[in-house]
Amino acid sequence: MSDYTLFFNPMSRALIVQWAFAEAGVEPKLAMVEWEDKPAELLEANPMGKIPTIIHHAEFGNKVVSEAAAICHYLAEMEAPDLLPRAEEKADYFRWLFFAAGPAEAAITNRAMGWEPKDAKQEMTSGFGSFERVVDTLDIWFQSHDFTCGDRFTMADVYVGSQIDWGLNFSTLTDRPSFRAYQSRLQERAAYKATLGSLGD
Amino acid sequence: MSDYTLFFNPMSRALIVQWAFAEAGVEPKLAMVEWEDKPAELLEANPMGKIPTIIHHAEFGNKVVSEAAAICHYLAEMEAPDLLPRAEEKADYFRWLFFAAGPAEAAITNRAMGWEPKDAKQEMTSGFGSFERVVDTLDIWFQSHDFTCGDRFTMADVYVGSQIDWGLNFSTLTDRPSFRAYQSRLQERAAYKATLGSLGD
Repeated sequence: MSDYTLFFNPMSRALIVQWAFAEAGVEPKLAMVEWEDKPAELLEANPMGKIPTIIHHAEFGNKVVSEAAAICHYLAEMEAPDLLPRAEEKADYFRWLFFAAGPAEAAITNRAMGWEPKDAKQEMTSGFGSFERVVDTLDIWFQSHDFTCGDRFTMADVYVGSQIDWGLNFSTLTDRPSFRAYQSRLQERAAYKATLGSLGD
Repeated sequence: MSDYTLFFNPMSRALIVQWAFAEAGVEPKLAMVEWEDKPAELLEANPMGKIPTIIHHAEFGNKVVSEAAAICHYLAEMEAPDLLPRAEEKADYFRWLFFAAGPAEAAITNRAMGWEPKDAKQEMTSGFGSFERVVDTLDIWFQSHDFTCGDRFTMADVYVGSQIDWGLNFSTLTDRPSFRAYQSRLQERAAYKATLGSLGD
């Protein structure tokens, strides 16, 4: 039996976490979730009923983790120390992981919903400033860095990279050469190919 | 000279990070930021021009960290290992840190902006579901847990706690007994009193 249960649906962000599991070399038990009939086990673990959610059947008890970015990082903590940041990489790792999960996620989702700041005051209140500023900030980084932490792939790239990969694939992110180059580097990884590789076909 | 520069304005979320510095027992150099005249040093460090932003003047070079949640966690990593989660606390720690920085932040900010999902389909797209579901999910947790990781204060409580503390103070969060009790526990801390304690006066 696997040490992990992953509540899953192939048409969801649970795919990000499936890539993270593959990077960590761990195969979770998949618990399929239908939108209209969510299993009681999921709702008990996560009252939001959101996927991805995982349960870690650990020696210290069953532990629930929700939020895709948190799950990616947790899997590195538990299963893949090589994908955790070294001391000098921690600033970049956590900065961009939270940037992707916070302002970038909000800017991309809100634009898709038609919710956009109308003036400088609203930009200040919104937290993410503006969609354009979020895109430019990521672009500046990836123009001069191959990965989130510089020149080495870490678990942060699964989440940050998924935001960019999905944003390009669904045209919810502005197309920029630095994003395309980063996406190509990610798509070369065996764990990406094994989980997300067939989706573009 | 301090090992850290904190870009600061007392009317901003930089206060959260000031509390985190106090918990870590580190005094940063404060670089005051006026909204209308942001220093070039800040814009170079963080093209978003957002505060809080810190620069860690580390032995391995100057490292920038932005995003309040990332800064709190980074300070624990670098300066306050006692405030990092133990192995069995990591699931709760990262789950709620990302929940507070992602869905909770989005739900609270979007409601303040007048942006709210209008139906089940929009709730699914919005990422945070609905404001009410976010509030209920936090409430369920704090009804049965004293802190983010259960019964012990960790650095996650600086950020998760600030969301609840600010939400109650500015009436952007629903008032619930579990939130008031958690807020009281946080307000007993010396580091809270030293940094945020006078704001309610």
